[in-house]
Order: sequence, then C-alpha cells, then structure tokens
Amino acid sequence: MATVPLLSDEAAPEASRVTLDAIRAARGAEPNNFWRALAHDPDQLAETWAAVNAALGPGVLDPLVKEMIYVAVSVANSCAYCVHSHTAAAKAKGMTPAMHAELLRVVQTASRTNALATALGVEVDERFRA
Amino acid sequence: MATVPLLSDEAAPEASRVTLDAIRAARGAEPNNFWRALAHDPDQLAETWAAVNAALGPGVLDPLVKEMIYVAVSVANSCAYCVHSHTAAAKAKGMTPAMHAELLRVVQTASRTNALATALGVEVDERFRA
Amino acid sequence: MATVPLLSDEAAPEASRVTLDAIRAARGAEPNNFWRALAHDPDQLAETWAAVNAALGPGVLDPLVKEMIYVAVSVANSCAYCVHSHTAAAKAKGMTPAMHAELLRVVQTASRTNALATALGVEVDERFRA
Amino acid sequence: MATVPLLSDEAAPEASRVTLDAIRAARGAEPNNFWRALAHDPDQLAETWAAVNAALGPGVLDPLVKEMIYVAVSVANSCAYCVHSHTAAAKAKGMTPAMHAELLRVVQTASRTNALATALGVEVDERFRA
Amino acid sequence: MATVPLLSDEAAPEASRVTLDAIRAARGAEPNNFWRALAHDPDQLAETWAAVNAALGPGVLDPLVKEMIYVAVSVANSCAYCVHSHTAAAKAKGMTPAMHAELLRVVQTASRTNALATALGVEVDERFRA
Amino acid sequence: MATVPLLSDEAAPEASRVTLDAIRAARGAEPNNFWRALAHDPDQLAETWAAVNAALGPGVLDPLVKEMIYVAVSVANSCAYCVHSHTAAAKAKGMTPAMHAELLRVVQTASRTNALATALGVEVDERFRA
Repeated sequence: MATVPLLSDEAAPEASRVTLDAIRAARGAEPNNFWRALAHDPDQLAETWAAVNAALGPGVLDPLVKEMIYVAVSVANSCAYCVHSHTAAAKAKGMTPAMHAELLRVVQTASRTNALATALGVEVDERFRA
Repeated sequence: MATVPLLSDEAAPEASRVTLDAIRAARGAEPNNFWRALAHDPDQLAETWAAVNAALGPGVLDPLVKEMIYVAVSVANSCAYCVHSHTAAAKAKGMTPAMHAELLRVVQTASRTNALATALGVEVDERFRA
Repeated sequence: MATVPLLSDEAAPEASRVTLDAIRAARGAEPNNFWRALAHDPDQLAETWAAVNAALGPGVLDPLVKEMIYVAVSVANSCAYCVHSHTAAAKAKGMTPAMHAELLRVVQTASRTNALATALGVEVDERFRA
Repeated sequence: MATVPLLSDEAAPEASRVTLDAIRAARGAEPNNFWRALAHDPDQLAETWAAVNAALGPGVLDPLVKEMIYVAVSVANSCAYCVHSHTAAAKAKGMTPAMHAELLRVVQTASRTNALATALGVEVDERFRA
Repeated sequence: MATVPLLSDEAAPEASRVTLDAIRAARGAEPNNFWRALAHDPDQLAETWAAVNAALGPGVLDPLVKEMIYVAVSVANSCAYCVHSHTAAAKAKGMTPAMHAELLRVVQTASRTNALATALGVEVDERFRA
Repeated sequence: MATVPLLSDEAAPEASRVTLDAIRAARGAEPNNFWRALAHDPDQLAETWAAVNAALGPGVLDPLVKEMIYVAVSVANSCAYCVHSHTAAAKAKGMTPAMHAELLRVVQTASRTNALATALGVEVDERFRA
C-alpha cells in the first residue's frame, strides 16, 4: 500500500533522478520505497535526503548513537516503516544484539515513566529550569 | 498542579521512605516531584526507581547516550516533565550545548521523516526484514 | 493561556447558555474552563456535552470503569487538561487511591509493551484475527 | 516483518525457555510473536512477562476491566499488535460485543475531547488540583 | 486483520443497513472496511457517519481543505487506515499531486517544529494569549 | 520553563542575529520564545526559519489554509506552544471565529475516527491503493 505510486528511475522526474543516483552511490544499494514515493517531488526529495544526511552524518555524536536515537523517536512516533529502516541502518553501522536490547530497554522505560509523569500531572521542578 | 498530593518524607508511607532515601543517596539531592507523587504507592515507587536505574545504569551503551535516548523518547511522547528532568540529567552527565543541539537535530529530523513515511503509506522493504 | 477567550454566561451566545445551564444542573458546579472555551460554538458545545454524557452514562460498563478508561486514553494522548479533569471526576465517582494506583500501573505497563511491540515490529498472530 | 528473528524454543537462549514455558503454562497456548521476538533478551523477557502479569492479575480492579484499559491505551498509542492481542485477551476474559462497543465509544469520545482541549489550550481549573 | 468481523449487508443488524445504504448512496460505492467493522453497533455507526458528514460537508471552509486537514491529523495520529482513505477522498475532491506534495511539506514541517518546541520546553509567549 | 536559556540579541551568537533580524523584519514583531531558544544553534535556527517560511509561503495552497493545517498537526502532536503560536498566526492571516470553530470540528472528528479505525484494526481497502 502507498498513497502515491513508487517511481522507478525511468518514471521519476529528471530532477529526482539526481537524488536517486546520490542515494544509490551513498548507500551502495537501490533507493528504498520511501525515496521512490518521495520522488514525485524533486525538491522535497532532495531536501529530505540532505536533512537525513546532515542529522546522521559526522558531528559531535557518534553516527551509530544518532541512528539509535532515530530508532527511538520512530518507535515513540509509531512509524513502522522508520523503525524497520533505521533499525536495519543501525545494525549496518555496528549495533550488536546486546546494544539493540539495551536500546529497547531505554525506550520502554522512558515510555512507562512518560505515561506515569503525565498521569500524575506533576509540575516541573524549579531546579530543572535552564 | 498534580493529580495526587506530593508527599514529604513525613507524609509518605514508611515503605516509600526507603526508596526516597535511596534516591537522595544516589542523586545527592532531594527527590524531585515525580518521586514525591509516586510515593503514594511504595511498590510502584520502588519498581520504577529500579527500572530507571537499570535502564540508565552501566551496560553496553554509554550512560550519557542512554540519557539522550531517554530525552528523545520523552520529546516524541510530549512529556514536558520528562523532557526537563532528563535534559537536566544529561547535562549533569556531560552533555555539552553542541551535543544537545545535535540531539535536537536528530529528533526533529526523525519527526519529519516519521510524518512523511506515514503520509506516504509506503510498505516496509523486504530487505529490512530481520 | 487559551486560544479563545473563556466565556462567562453573560458573554456566551444565547444558544450556549442552555448547555451551560445543563452542565451546571448535572454537575452541581460551575462549568469548567473547557466548556467555557467551547461556548463560542453553541452546536459544538451541545454535541460535545451530549457525547461525553452518552459515553460516560449508564450502559453495560460501570460508570467509574468508563471514567478510568477515559483517564487512560487522556494520559496516552498527553492531554494534561483531560487527565486532571477526568481524574477528579473518577475520584468523585468513587475511585480510591488504591484503584488510582492500579490504574497507573496498567497504563504504564501498556505504554512500555506498546513501545516494545512497535520496536520489535512483530506481525499480528493469526490467532488474534476476529 | 520484525526487526529481530522470532525465536523457536530450540533457538532461544536457555534462560528464555523458562519464561516461554511459564507463558505456555499460564496461557494454555503457544507463546505469541511478541514473546518470541523478546526471547533474544532473557532478562527483558522475564521482566516484561512479570510486569504484564502484575498489571493484569488480581487487585482492586477487575481483571477484565484492566484488560480493557490496556486496549484503550494501546489504541491511543497506535500499537496495532497490542490492540489485536489485548482485544483477543479481553474477549477471552468475558468481554461481550456490547462491552466492546461501549469501550470503543469511550475511547473515541476521549480522543475527540483530548483534541479539543489541546486545541483550545485551556488551563487546568483550580478545582482539579489534588 | 481486524478485531471484529467485517459485516456484509446480510450479516449486519437491520438498523445498520439503513446507514450502509446511506453511505452507498452518498459515495456511489460500496461502504469500505471501516463502516463494515463499525456495523456491529448501529448507533455508533449512524453517529460516526453523521459526524464525518457534518465535519466534511458544506461550511465556511472548502470541502477539499477540510479533507486535507483530516489527512494531516490522521498522519500525526499514525492512523494508516485513515491516511489511505482520506488521501483517496481528497484526490476524489480535486487534490492534485502538487497540492498533495504541499500538504506533505506542511505536515512534515509542523512535525519537526512540534518536536523542537517540545524539546526546548519554551513557555507560550504572552502575546499569543487570546 | 525551558531546557535552554532564551537568548536576547546581545547574548546570541553573531550568526544567529542575522536570522533574528530577518524574523523581526518579516513579522514586524520581536522574535518569539521559540526562536530565542533556538538561537543557541545558528545553523538550526536559520534552517528552521527557512523551512517554516517555505512551508507556509506562497504555493498552490492558500497561506491561511496551510496555517490551519499547521495548527491541526500541532494539536494532534500535543504541542501546546505550537498550537498557541500557529492559532495566533492563523488569526493574523484572517481566520475568523467561524473558521476556527470549523477547524476544531474537523480535528476532533478526525481524532475520533482515527481512534476507532485503530481500535477496529481494519485493513486498508484495495481501492485506496495509489
């Protein structure tokens, strides 16, 4: 299922092919379904690809750490597609089963205390003010 | 505001005081509002404290990394209390302004592609199957 | 804060006053902020009041049970206003501290397994098909 | 799809088999996909099974009521897997079609007023303060 | 998958058939899965159909605009079914690929600034008070 | 409350002042709290400002329509700050009370059917496939 057709390179607008080629070169694999669906809009495709690279590329945090944070957010936002694609990416970047299990533990613990804090309705302590 | 009164040590059930003392000892500070609200239920207080420690304590992932994952989940779950308390905890564990900014970049980028993938309704690629 | 002014009976449209009076009569108390904000739109005010009464009124489930389910949904949707108002309503209908604590336990446990199931990406078992 | 392989009893770590056997004994049925995915991590499997039992077991609230609250939270958190598994569990515990329909009515009504209260941005009334 | 059987006209309660016929007449097509699942509860079926019509029918906003707002909410609530059905409805009401792309741009931008504002924890400016 | 200090023009990095000035010029008002919190990171500030302008600026959809879609997403994501700031922006762009009320009706109706569709667990109809 999809709300737009997934475009092959041939069917995509010329301007989208540049980005599809860039994805293919960077990933060493065919662009996945997400990019083929976004290919209808060359600008949004190019900007999204640039944003994902900027967020997950070199910086002060380790690339694997950032990929795991990406998975965590995707879980909390209930995005099945993103959970699958970024868990696969994290494994490709070196996430071991033990690291995956520990990531799941943090995510489920945060989810339970998020629910508790909201249910208790407690106000933020003054000491947490920046 | 809170849906239950925040309990002082004196007002808390005897069984809760043990955990409140453990929190005070571990954190070197007074238990914050969340724990004082949970103190009505000694079992749930003790279990939640144990769970948070297990999730954020020593393991295969760095404690600061886990604290930042905790913040990311709390943002995605819209828990203002948890965002404030765990951002403060991450800073206490060494999160610099540059690391915080990079965390925010990953969180906002994941949030936008989560929305896009859901809007596009794309199916998970076969290659992501574990 | 509010995105619309809270209307007093005098400031509300004539058609809204009927519903405000009905709320006052049914609750034995002044309409709370939610109703005063909705009072700008007499139709939506009347329909929402009717819907809440239909959902929480007599039926095959106990009114207190339904109020607790309402709290649970409000927590998961991060609606601070609704968490406070329906927790207060549940207490008024007989929810004891022990029942409240048990409600919180179910909500936080569901939240953690919701996150785990989404992170694991498991498909629904055939046996759960209706 | 799943982000980890679903483990048979033979493939699961020895320590996970104890919990898988406990699930089989308690449920009188094969462990479902969720537990087979969690089986990679014996500690997390055992703790999650214990937590679910503690939340849904004997207490001051009726077990069926707690199962319905579990369904309500799972709906609000958009966890398709959990909605299916806990709706099935609620039916097994005696939820009739009429009770299911009433549960759906409470959940949809809470969802609509949650959205309204957030959109109106109203502050919590003083009277709701615990 | 579904948590209730999808009812054919023959299997549906007599009272639900009136609404199923109304849907068929209004849409010029067979009622989709959502309505067949709701058909177990004639009252909830009729009320939901009336509510959707009232929300999306004639008013001060253009029907296509309202359908796009419906899609936007469904994306943010991670409802795959609703994203698909209302995107199809928006196309039927005249949403062009360019309009769809622009809708996606607004939705993803709102999602990223929603996450940022929550992560930054900023208080609402006084000037935004109604 | 905020997780970072809100920066005045004087305290902000030189590179952030350019964007703060651009916001001031475009809005004819002082930059609001969101931008002052983001000012710690000149790149993220500039990119976010550009993204918001691109999403809400001229296009195939009316600017007011896009502002209302922005509000709808912010409600569904429970971002109180964004609900307030974009509701104010929509009013400034011409949203009347009647339009606001109709927006709220669409948002609450989508929220209730989102919950229902998720609770019923119905599969997407073939006819909705793009």
